[in-house]
Amino acid sequence: MLSSKRLLQADEGRRQFQWAKGHMPALLLAKQHVDKSEGRNLLSGLRIGLCLHISKETAVLVEAFHSLGMKINLVAANPLSTQNPIREYLSHYLKVKVGGNKFESVRDYRHDIDKLAKTDPDLIIDDGGELHVAYARSKGNNCFGGTDETTSGTTRLLALQKKQMLKYHVIPVNEAQTKHLFDNRYGTGQSSLDGLVRATGLLIAGKVLVVCGYGWVGKGVAACARGLGARVIVTEVNPVTALEAHLDGYQVMRMGEAIRLGEIFLTCTGQIDIISRGHFEKMKDGAIVGNCGHFDREINISDLKELSSSSKRITEYVAKFGLGNKSIYLLCNGRVINLVAAEGHPPEVMQLSFANQLLAIHYLARHRDEFARDSPRVLVFPREIDEMVSRFALSAFNLTIDKLSPEQLRYSESYSC
Amino acid sequence: MLSSKRLLQADEGRRQFQWAKGHMPALLLAKQHVDKSEGRNLLSGLRIGLCLHISKETAVLVEAFHSLGMKINLVAANPLSTQNPIREYLSHYLKVKVGGNKFESVRDYRHDIDKLAKTDPDLIIDDGGELHVAYARSKGNNCFGGTDETTSGTTRLLALQKKQMLKYHVIPVNEAQTKHLFDNRYGTGQSSLDGLVRATGLLIAGKVLVVCGYGWVGKGVAACARGLGARVIVTEVNPVTALEAHLDGYQVMRMGEAIRLGEIFLTCTGQIDIISRGHFEKMKDGAIVGNCGHFDREINISDLKELSSSSKRITEYVAKFGLGNKSIYLLCNGRVINLVAAEGHPPEVMQLSFANQLLAIHYLARHRDEFARDSPRVLVFPREIDEMVSRFALSAFNLTIDKLSPEQLRYSESYSC
Amino acid sequence: MLSSKRLLQADEGRRQFQWAKGHMPALLLAKQHVDKSEGRNLLSGLRIGLCLHISKETAVLVEAFHSLGMKINLVAANPLSTQNPIREYLSHYLKVKVGGNKFESVRDYRHDIDKLAKTDPDLIIDDGGELHVAYARSKGNNCFGGTDETTSGTTRLLALQKKQMLKYHVIPVNEAQTKHLFDNRYGTGQSSLDGLVRATGLLIAGKVLVVCGYGWVGKGVAACARGLGARVIVTEVNPVTALEAHLDGYQVMRMGEAIRLGEIFLTCTGQIDIISRGHFEKMKDGAIVGNCGHFDREINISDLKELSSSSKRITEYVAKFGLGNKSIYLLCNGRVINLVAAEGHPPEVMQLSFANQLLAIHYLARHRDEFARDSPRVLVFPREIDEMVSRFALSAFNLTIDKLSPEQLRYSESYSC
Amino acid sequence: MLSSKRLLQADEGRRQFQWAKGHMPALLLAKQHVDKSEGRNLLSGLRIGLCLHISKETAVLVEAFHSLGMKINLVAANPLSTQNPIREYLSHYLKVKVGGNKFESVRDYRHDIDKLAKTDPDLIIDDGGELHVAYARSKGNNCFGGTDETTSGTTRLLALQKKQMLKYHVIPVNEAQTKHLFDNRYGTGQSSLDGLVRATGLLIAGKVLVVCGYGWVGKGVAACARGLGARVIVTEVNPVTALEAHLDGYQVMRMGEAIRLGEIFLTCTGQIDIISRGHFEKMKDGAIVGNCGHFDREINISDLKELSSSSKRITEYVAKFGLGNKSIYLLCNGRVINLVAAEGHPPEVMQLSFANQLLAIHYLARHRDEFARDSPRVLVFPREIDEMVSRFALSAFNLTIDKLSPEQLRYSESYSC
Repeated sequence: MLSSKRLLQADEGRRQFQWAKGHMPALLLAKQHVDKSEGRNLLSGLRIGLCLHISKETAVLVEAFHSLGMKINLVAANPLSTQNPIREYLSHYLKVKVGGNKFESVRDYRHDIDKLAKTDPDLIIDDGGELHVAYARSKGNNCFGGTDETTSGTTRLLALQKKQMLKYHVIPVNEAQTKHLFDNRYGTGQSSLDGLVRATGLLIAGKVLVVCGYGWVGKGVAACARGLGARVIVTEVNPVTALEAHLDGYQVMRMGEAIRLGEIFLTCTGQIDIISRGHFEKMKDGAIVGNCGHFDREINISDLKELSSSSKRITEYVAKFGLGNKSIYLLCNGRVINLVAAEGHPPEVMQLSFANQLLAIHYLARHRDEFARDSPRVLVFPREIDEMVSRFALSAFNLTIDKLSPEQLRYSESYSC
Repeated sequence: MLSSKRLLQADEGRRQFQWAKGHMPALLLAKQHVDKSEGRNLLSGLRIGLCLHISKETAVLVEAFHSLGMKINLVAANPLSTQNPIREYLSHYLKVKVGGNKFESVRDYRHDIDKLAKTDPDLIIDDGGELHVAYARSKGNNCFGGTDETTSGTTRLLALQKKQMLKYHVIPVNEAQTKHLFDNRYGTGQSSLDGLVRATGLLIAGKVLVVCGYGWVGKGVAACARGLGARVIVTEVNPVTALEAHLDGYQVMRMGEAIRLGEIFLTCTGQIDIISRGHFEKMKDGAIVGNCGHFDREINISDLKELSSSSKRITEYVAKFGLGNKSIYLLCNGRVINLVAAEGHPPEVMQLSFANQLLAIHYLARHRDEFARDSPRVLVFPREIDEMVSRFALSAFNLTIDKLSPEQLRYSESYSC
Repeated sequence: MLSSKRLLQADEGRRQFQWAKGHMPALLLAKQHVDKSEGRNLLSGLRIGLCLHISKETAVLVEAFHSLGMKINLVAANPLSTQNPIREYLSHYLKVKVGGNKFESVRDYRHDIDKLAKTDPDLIIDDGGELHVAYARSKGNNCFGGTDETTSGTTRLLALQKKQMLKYHVIPVNEAQTKHLFDNRYGTGQSSLDGLVRATGLLIAGKVLVVCGYGWVGKGVAACARGLGARVIVTEVNPVTALEAHLDGYQVMRMGEAIRLGEIFLTCTGQIDIISRGHFEKMKDGAIVGNCGHFDREINISDLKELSSSSKRITEYVAKFGLGNKSIYLLCNGRVINLVAAEGHPPEVMQLSFANQLLAIHYLARHRDEFARDSPRVLVFPREIDEMVSRFALSAFNLTIDKLSPEQLRYSESYSC
Repeated sequence: MLSSKRLLQADEGRRQFQWAKGHMPALLLAKQHVDKSEGRNLLSGLRIGLCLHISKETAVLVEAFHSLGMKINLVAANPLSTQNPIREYLSHYLKVKVGGNKFESVRDYRHDIDKLAKTDPDLIIDDGGELHVAYARSKGNNCFGGTDETTSGTTRLLALQKKQMLKYHVIPVNEAQTKHLFDNRYGTGQSSLDGLVRATGLLIAGKVLVVCGYGWVGKGVAACARGLGARVIVTEVNPVTALEAHLDGYQVMRMGEAIRLGEIFLTCTGQIDIISRGHFEKMKDGAIVGNCGHFDREINISDLKELSSSSKRITEYVAKFGLGNKSIYLLCNGRVINLVAAEGHPPEVMQLSFANQLLAIHYLARHRDEFARDSPRVLVFPREIDEMVSRFALSAFNLTIDKLSPEQLRYSESYSC
């Protein structure tokens, strides 16, 4: 039985869950679609393992699987991103097994993932690929399909495929247009700035803010930062993307130059060592560094620690490092700031990503026999799901759009001028 | 002696105070200016009563007065805006008398203000005019000067002056260019959006957000909302300001029309009843209403309660009201969202406002005898202070600008073409 | 009798005039207001001298005066800004005396102004103050009132007043809110970028564009440049304005630094020698310099010529100067680019400025006797005109706004909290 | 021999050509690349037929082919887009055969294309596909490769391929990232607004501007319009793109609704009948319609003419149509406004598109034998060219960017977390 404190948390979590659910109609439409389909019972009784950020939006996805009769085992996709009231809500009211705890140790966090892999579920949803990797290394062979939520996950899945370590077909949900064009851009954009402001309390207007990486996440972060008055510098390794940033009006330069100019640095690359030893040495006194990517390896914290003669916590999410006579401030211990210092993506964005997740899981169940005959691979994201979600999203946002007339359709396939 | 919990809070408050102080060099320059002036001792021993939001930035101002030898009595300018760790810090480490408590009752809040008025201090700093009004109604006659921080305060001071109820000269700090052009616009802009996002967790992009009033606050709120992707509608009563909003690319219309279109409403007027009975009746289901103005009278909450058949708390700062078969969500009980749901203005902005406050208080002390001979009035904001603060601010933001050459100066006063 | 070529031009001019008139309803409302007022006949028979840019919008103002029975004498306010079809239209169809000719010599241009001053009109409208100065130096004493259109004019009128050289009361129309907040910002902003693009044909996105001066004109130019994707640097001499630019997200620095970074320079200051010898020497190869201010003294062209070993015309509005092994490109010979390379402010903006002009001239006629008793001075812009124009403008832009209720009015004057 | 008037034009054209060339270093780098390659002589002596807008930028491409020893035959890609001075320059100084004449008849325009097709060149560059279609219908069989510049061309080439009418391999240059991400967005964005302002002289700020289609062109047009202060409404048929527009902060609706609200309409779809009978009937009085797409079929002009009781030319590029008691204004006779009323894309953008063209033509020559063995088809745009152009573009824009370290490269292919 829950302690009264945990019960209070569970009730708080329920209220947050309901608030989020009210803003995720596209996910509910996807759920209704499954309910009305022929394969409506395919998921019932299956065991699904989820490694996701334990947020109010995730709770809405979990509830959908729950009401489809699935057995759910949920662990956190980051040791700092768990919203405890949501954990209590899921655990107490839906009786879902939930690992994860805000501020848990990295060891506990990894242990939860490994433990989940070992339960050998039927299906896996992951965010970042750690659970997929853990499963690939486990002895499990029951799982028949998986999905992943993010760019980092896609990278890892392709690597597993290349090494022939995949044991099941995987749908990389991040590749859906209705995922990466929206979640990665508008979701991470707003919530990263939200995390930055909550962590530091500082004014964005007038700040020199360096956005490392101008992929969909970087584009969103740069746009929101500029929208709040920052002067944004972009660093890139991809020439086409760098040109886009330049013509979007941002200053583009090498990290080696930007490092001397920036007041705030946000890494958005999915890479390692974006900010490392040589960079810390050249930074201005007072510089602030934070990470918007999935893993905590974009900022090399070991380097920072080695260079520093002192360190102390300033506020909950700000740590100060002393290097000679300058100070550098690290946010959220290098972990993804929108989920650690703020609450992650807003529900309006997550409804698209999670509608894709729900339909992708259903798709895997519907094609189970067919896929069982092939060797496991990373699938191309099914166009039919993307289109369905885009229609649900229009409805969720109350948008109505035009249709091509038969003459226009014909014209679009003709060579008449 | 403080309980260990309060001591922990005091330490937390000290860390926040230090973080803020590090981002308020213009206020420190103003303090140094006073320290180096002939009148450096004029403030020592005087009793000052402050009615301000009890935030980390206010703590930096309080410390400045403290180190100038003043006796300080501080109360909250809003029953919901007090940051308790700061209260504990000031109380424990600086031994300042502090009223105010996050979530205190309105009755306690008002009582603190009245009590402070009755101590009959030598000088008064207010934010919104409530302390000035309380003093005007008290029997006090010792106070020889005051200031106020905000547009609402200026309005009340002018009304007191008109009724010949002023007992001392007042400097309306809001009238400083270096105050209202920055604090009201960039400060309230960012922090109101911050409050909105913290309270609701919703996506701003794509939302129809109605900004009521396009003064400096409304301009800032509209700009930040657009910067995050909102579609902003502006309502106004001033034709010139309405034209500005129109040509700034916002949709301008009467409240009677906007009320049917808005998904989020933010009042920025300093007026009463901006959203009242007839408006609630016409709103969309799910509409969210919040206030960015000083007082909680912009949204008529009595009307909302009377119209509602049910109400309940959804999250800490969101309350749901049921009207027939629609719901309306009220933020922060109608009180100023940036200070209630977020942390108020960032320190970089408050350093300008509070540098003006510090210098204005010093100015009142320097001209004490002179003013004693006149009948009390609301002063024109002293140009010399505004100029001094603008120079300190340039230095704080690390900006260097050009100077007119003698030839250019001459040209600017000649009629040669 | 007009040659057939000039007749064709007159017809072209008439079409342009009609197009403009259709987009200037606020000016027509101002005209109707005069027609319906008691003083409707006060202007009839009076001689008015106008020194304005001879554009389609000016033609609409001229026609208004014409239909009020005034005798009109119009000369150009810039040797390069005259739109010849408009000159022909006014001359042929309205029988107005018009000086000015696109590409006329500076000598002819000045001669026209002097000649107009010598006709000793009853009223004078000027743009920049040159006609006022010429009149002040003439023997004329018949003129009983004047107005001026622009910041440069206000400066000159105040200088004339200080030297006691004013012979009549003057209304500085630029001081109207409904003038400088709109014409100077949105009008000059769009049309200066228009001029820049027409003159050069270059892409604005990604360019480093230096805006010298962040007054209303600079604010408009910077906003439009950023809106088209430029990276804007601002230079200023006023600290408050510099801070605004900084927090608006522009890079602010001294001219001495900006000069090394800029690819395009636009002067918006009303000052002399903003770009002079030392600047040309430090500029990048290929830099482009243009002026958005009234007079052609912001860029010191003599300095440029002295430094150059070669010069040649590249396109109609671009001249190339060779300095050692670099080239600098000068636009429009240093004259105001929006009127020289493009067509000046759009009619929607000019309707506000010219409604103010029309009502200001009428105001001078209505108060003629009263003013005759005072010594001539620069008047404060009459608030009643500003308010009237703002109402006409709302109507012109099809905007309806709210009114304060009696309770709100009362609240705005009370000290109740 | 040229008349003196045409000679003056040729000289004017040469100056424009040189100005453009100075801003197209990426194209010159592509030319140098060909010059230094093994296949440097492959193009010499070949006959190339080009159907392109005859602009100063095109002249720079033509000169490159000329200096590679090709025999050139150039016709216009639009009857209204030819810049006559450029035609004279190419004809007189480079001795290139040029068809096309500003304001030529549609009949002449089509005749030129047919005539060029009949010369049966070795290679074809087209913009829109009309020359490819003409060649497909001709008896020619000499041509061994072609390219096309734009979305409309790709559509037509795919239709020709489907009907098995292609006689040679074609590279759809529009599919290059370094083409459509830049030319279509930043190029058309700026130049369409430029065309709109030149044609109408109106203020963009505050206008309700409907952008039909939110592809790359629509994205660019919407961004520039908003950047100048317009209130933009987007119409779409693609749900994903519509969602992007919505979250980018634009108002999204069906054409049937937008038609009642718009003051200015710009079609950016590549489709037919975007604005047709029913739309004209519902439009506001004074509405302005223009087209940014390649063909003049997006606005159904026949419908407009049939509905109108009167029509007349207002200014060079504006025609007024009377429908009952309202007027509708048509820009540029429905043809692409950026090339008709303005000068098309700026050289900085065209250097990317034309570097792709040059390298694509060279690619076709290098693979001539290989392709001769296959049946003709529309090729996937060669990735190697896109990458090369992106590097040239970085250099042209003076940008330097980072490179992945070996460790980072390894990480991007690993599954380590």
